[in-house]
Amino acid sequence: MSPTVINYAQAMGRWEPDARGRLERAALELYIERGFEQTTVDEIAKLAGLTERTFFRYFADKREVLFWGAGALQELLVSTVTDAEVSDAPIAAISAAIQTAGALFQERREHALLRQSVIAANPELQERELIKLATLASAMADALRQRGVGEPGASLSAEAGIAVLKIGFERWIEENGQPDLPRLIRELFEELRTATSG
Amino acid sequence: MSPTVINYAQAMGRWEPDARGRLERAALELYIERGFEQTTVDEIAKLAGLTERTFFRYFADKREVLFWGAGALQELLVSTVTDAEVSDAPIAAISAAIQTAGALFQERREHALLRQSVIAANPELQERELIKLATLASAMADALRQRGVGEPGASLSAEAGIAVLKIGFERWIEENGQPDLPRLIRELFEELRTATSG
Repeated sequence: MSPTVINYAQAMGRWEPDARGRLERAALELYIERGFEQTTVDEIAKLAGLTERTFFRYFADKREVLFWGAGALQELLVSTVTDAEVSDAPIAAISAAIQTAGALFQERREHALLRQSVIAANPELQERELIKLATLASAMADALRQRGVGEPGASLSAEAGIAVLKIGFERWIEENGQPDLPRLIRELFEELRTATSG
Repeated sequence: MSPTVINYAQAMGRWEPDARGRLERAALELYIERGFEQTTVDEIAKLAGLTERTFFRYFADKREVLFWGAGALQELLVSTVTDAEVSDAPIAAISAAIQTAGALFQERREHALLRQSVIAANPELQERELIKLATLASAMADALRQRGVGEPGASLSAEAGIAVLKIGFERWIEENGQPDLPRLIRELFEELRTATSG
């Protein structure tokens, strides 16, 4: 939050420390306990000790609590691809980006596990997750093209990277977030090379 | 349609020659002319010279007109993977399956182009299409595991194949269905091998 926003919120007497985090934890708790569909914004705000109005200052709706991080994740992937060494092969830039994403999930392991259990229980949320992955693939392909990588190499590398992220993340979740996700991702890129070489 | 079904339909006095095809063509025409959202089942049936009741004998709703082929496509992919030579590498079996799908689209080129223009205009249909692709990837990975291919090779090969299908199909559509899609797919598998080897 920028200082301006904090000052404004404080002046308005509505500033609550870590309101976003409190709302997020309350929402996950309720989504797991009662189900995503059955939970209301009012209940989330109450459990967080905040008002519904405060909820809507942070999230457009109860689904966004699960997806607000997608923008930051996309920026992280794109900036990692953009900042990779010029001499790196496209797939190396993509691998670096996906490993960085893996490190982020690993850092927020508990949150990632809880969030995933909510997503897994709801087909509509699974659809939203697939759209998120497709958007991330497009954004990385764009970033590669900005670096002068041609087609179809840019799209193939980006889509292959998202396939690795999807498979790596699933396996990591199955093993309760125990394996080191960035390392698992690195290994999967190796396996992908072996698999595609026939 | 099996002879039993035809006889039953004739006996019921409701059999209409090529009703499914007529409904499908009428639906596509209206989806393109008026938009998917704006078209009603009643209008589709009327344009096809059939009743709403007949429509619902073939399709659960107006969205299914665009997705009823997904089951057959999945069977085609799975059977191609299953029937591939035992000595074939997993990625070769996947490549054969994706090329077969490509040949199917090429055969129904005009229908594929019309259908895609409807999908492209509607985010909800695009979501449905992404789910379809994810389901096809899972089904092919299953088919590979049935052949004794281990993980993560099975999932990586299947997801890579779907990435190739997605990218190849997009390019084919951009070029108005002119390039030979199975050949384009074969070339993309080669490019994928180059891209992933770094």
